[in-house]
Amino acid sequence: MLNRPKPVLKLKRLGINTYKEAVVYMHDKCHVCRAEGFEVQARIKLTHNDKSIIATLNIVNSEILKQGELGLSEFAMQTLNAKEGDKIRISHPPTIDSLGYVRSKIYGHELPDKYFQSIINDIVAGRYSDIHISSFLTACAGGRLNRQEIIHLTSAMVESGKKLKWGKSLVVDKHCVGGLPGNRTTPIVVAIVAAYGLTMPKTSSRAITSPAGTADTMEVLAPVNLDVETMCKVVEKENGCLVWGGSVALSPADDLLIRVEKALDIDSEGQLVASVLSKKIAAGSSHVLIDIPVGPTAKIRSIEMVEELSRFLEETGSALGVSIRVHTSDGTQPIGRGIGPALEARDVIEVLTNRPSAPLDLRERALDLAGHTLEFSPKIKNGQGRKIAETILNDGKAWSKFQAICEAQGGMRKIPKAKYTHSVEASKSGQVVSIDNRRIARVAKLAGAPTDKVAGVDLYSPIGTIIEKGQPLFTVHAHAPGELDYALNYLEGHQDIINIQEET
Amino acid sequence: MLNRPKPVLKLKRLGINTYKEAVVYMHDKCHVCRAEGFEVQARIKLTHNDKSIIATLNIVNSEILKQGELGLSEFAMQTLNAKEGDKIRISHPPTIDSLGYVRSKIYGHELPDKYFQSIINDIVAGRYSDIHISSFLTACAGGRLNRQEIIHLTSAMVESGKKLKWGKSLVVDKHCVGGLPGNRTTPIVVAIVAAYGLTMPKTSSRAITSPAGTADTMEVLAPVNLDVETMCKVVEKENGCLVWGGSVALSPADDLLIRVEKALDIDSEGQLVASVLSKKIAAGSSHVLIDIPVGPTAKIRSIEMVEELSRFLEETGSALGVSIRVHTSDGTQPIGRGIGPALEARDVIEVLTNRPSAPLDLRERALDLAGHTLEFSPKIKNGQGRKIAETILNDGKAWSKFQAICEAQGGMRKIPKAKYTHSVEASKSGQVVSIDNRRIARVAKLAGAPTDKVAGVDLYSPIGTIIEKGQPLFTVHAHAPGELDYALNYLEGHQDIINIQEET
Repeated sequence: MLNRPKPVLKLKRLGINTYKEAVVYMHDKCHVCRAEGFEVQARIKLTHNDKSIIATLNIVNSEILKQGELGLSEFAMQTLNAKEGDKIRISHPPTIDSLGYVRSKIYGHELPDKYFQSIINDIVAGRYSDIHISSFLTACAGGRLNRQEIIHLTSAMVESGKKLKWGKSLVVDKHCVGGLPGNRTTPIVVAIVAAYGLTMPKTSSRAITSPAGTADTMEVLAPVNLDVETMCKVVEKENGCLVWGGSVALSPADDLLIRVEKALDIDSEGQLVASVLSKKIAAGSSHVLIDIPVGPTAKIRSIEMVEELSRFLEETGSALGVSIRVHTSDGTQPIGRGIGPALEARDVIEVLTNRPSAPLDLRERALDLAGHTLEFSPKIKNGQGRKIAETILNDGKAWSKFQAICEAQGGMRKIPKAKYTHSVEASKSGQVVSIDNRRIARVAKLAGAPTDKVAGVDLYSPIGTIIEKGQPLFTVHAHAPGELDYALNYLEGHQDIINIQEET
Repeated sequence: MLNRPKPVLKLKRLGINTYKEAVVYMHDKCHVCRAEGFEVQARIKLTHNDKSIIATLNIVNSEILKQGELGLSEFAMQTLNAKEGDKIRISHPPTIDSLGYVRSKIYGHELPDKYFQSIINDIVAGRYSDIHISSFLTACAGGRLNRQEIIHLTSAMVESGKKLKWGKSLVVDKHCVGGLPGNRTTPIVVAIVAAYGLTMPKTSSRAITSPAGTADTMEVLAPVNLDVETMCKVVEKENGCLVWGGSVALSPADDLLIRVEKALDIDSEGQLVASVLSKKIAAGSSHVLIDIPVGPTAKIRSIEMVEELSRFLEETGSALGVSIRVHTSDGTQPIGRGIGPALEARDVIEVLTNRPSAPLDLRERALDLAGHTLEFSPKIKNGQGRKIAETILNDGKAWSKFQAICEAQGGMRKIPKAKYTHSVEASKSGQVVSIDNRRIARVAKLAGAPTDKVAGVDLYSPIGTIIEKGQPLFTVHAHAPGELDYALNYLEGHQDIINIQEET
């Protein structure tokens, strides 16, 4: 009775996009489903040629499937490399031992290296459902990973994917821990550092909980979904690149975790360190500058949090052979004017082309960070980096390099504009004394950012601005009227996003 | 532009059963989907007449949906009370404030009463996705709820559903915290206590992580999906009942939480207390006996754990006006012979009918618990209960009462038998010295229990049994060959479930 042939069903394409969740659809009268005793929500192993995946079962009772057929979510079809008509073998999945390690973490136990490896490998192999990933992330959040566990998690994430090698002892990178809307310095920094001649193979993420990630913004200007081979060619030719980390399969667990973190709207400390450093290490970086904006409504709100996070970053880097330098910056308000991919891309271009209208705060911050990054070079003394960066930006070399990188990545693009905009005016005269970063980011997200590149907020009133009643504070941009409405509805309930103090 | 009419789509029935997850399917060319800027996995508010629900979006790119149509998972259709052709209004969901409280819990903060109320109300209203529920459960697991929070959670769960009132000062109940395969005393206890004349409106759960819950086993013998009205009639007529808690909508949050706990295979302390007591309190009980089996492979493994759990149960009960008595029992091995709904039902009937083949351990344990429950009556002194229980069982009054309850619930059923069985024999001669409860339960589950009523394990060799090589240790029962194979495959890798010590 053991080892009898595994049951096979014919694939019917239903065209259901579940994003990155593997779902299998089987008819309730299907003999295989019945013979194997599968019930709704069961986890089922699917095999096609040499590929296999574990999917969640939905049982269908309608004519969309015939007897002998099964359907798969688009993600499951892609992962199995299967097309309509293919024969799919189905079976019971093996027991997932690493879920026991997740339970151990829930109960507060410290996990050894190999347990993190098992968990991450099972996640990358698609063996965890969203429920499992959510539990793992929650069990590790809120300071529940100690420094050793953060090192283990980071290392496991590095090992789960490809690792790039550049054959150089100095490969620099720069990362901002986020939390500050519009803070899009990376494209400027890469352009300056690559123009100087250092190797900076920059991979960036898409937004987790913000209105735009660097990859989202950069995609407005050039293709970012490059494979590893193309990315290496770009870096060989131009010293630098600006690509989406997800497409080069560095630290592949990260995107699967981020998808669930996004739904939970959490981005915990240990996960943050592992997410940032695993990508840098996998990208072959030797020296990494970490920018941490601090402010009352930024992701990091106090100098104590910076110190703790810095320690985790430095220790994890040191344990895994990467030199980390932490830079703290002002996180009290958004940087630049635009918040959202296209609006931020516009700010970046204005700075790179030295236009008089360019937002000065973005320029200054990019120069600071480029300066610190350049100082990783043994040829540049501490304190000299910024001046060199400024010269490279002012004389147009950074802009030339940026254009060259865009061309190498597949061609520079024109920045699109939103169809729908709405200007929000000051309800009184006075001085802008504070801006709620989280709420202004929320408005940009409700307006459709980052999915709609053109969506977001264009902000005219940084802290300190003297404003007259009726003068525009910011403009909401949206691609669709539903989202514009939604952002405006939210604004009606939150009039205090920009706090104006009347003169007395 | 604000307050323009909400978009409407026509419902096409796709017949997709996702169990209790609300999913909405929209075509990728759908103008409403585009105009509103919805992306895959977005949470969408659906309204039909006076009902609304929040569902997760799957985007369809095939002919299963036409333009202007939308599909819903069967659960979403039922919740909205909608049928094919109905017009469904779609909109962006309001922000779910209570997710902020879940994040606060993740970060280790103590939550006040009203936060638990918001969370539980949002879960019952279908506003949480599985990802959110998983995070909430994980954040509360591993001892992260203090006693006050457990009281808040329990109270929130009681308030989220119906509450029964019996107009009596003495309404008894009994609950076993589980973890011991086959320990099916409840039907026997209810029969004895109701035959004596005490009111015992018993609601039971289905299995969480075990091969059978009392409701699963009882369903083999009689209908258990009773509505509140029918349940009340049964209790009025017979003093007791044995129904599934989920169908009477007591503590409705519990079933939604249990579904996700099942996928996670966790059943945390705080959740356990809230789950047990919220149902008892909602059922109108005044006095509850809690049976906690203790053993190295039972759910509760040490006397320290019992003491902690007892304290939580007693304190929560006391805070919410219910008298709790905790009874500790031996949890070193399964009780009775059968593990799985039908096999356990057979054991129960053998005890109730005083057959010589009845498993003595199940009989003894049921009498102990019935005795303690009877002692809640002011007419019975401590220590006298067991003798009264024994008389009621021996003279057939318990069996008559049980039959009467089954008839009142809709009619007694015949116990079905498995089509496929496989006997596992001792690999050596000697004495059975220990049994791994968790693994034997796993075999029963892999064989199909509790979904297949007939599936499970029939155990012939309790601890102490002297056994010859080749003698049967237990028989695996399954409804389908796939599941029998699966259980046997697992057994091949785990030969040590029953530990036999050779005589020396």
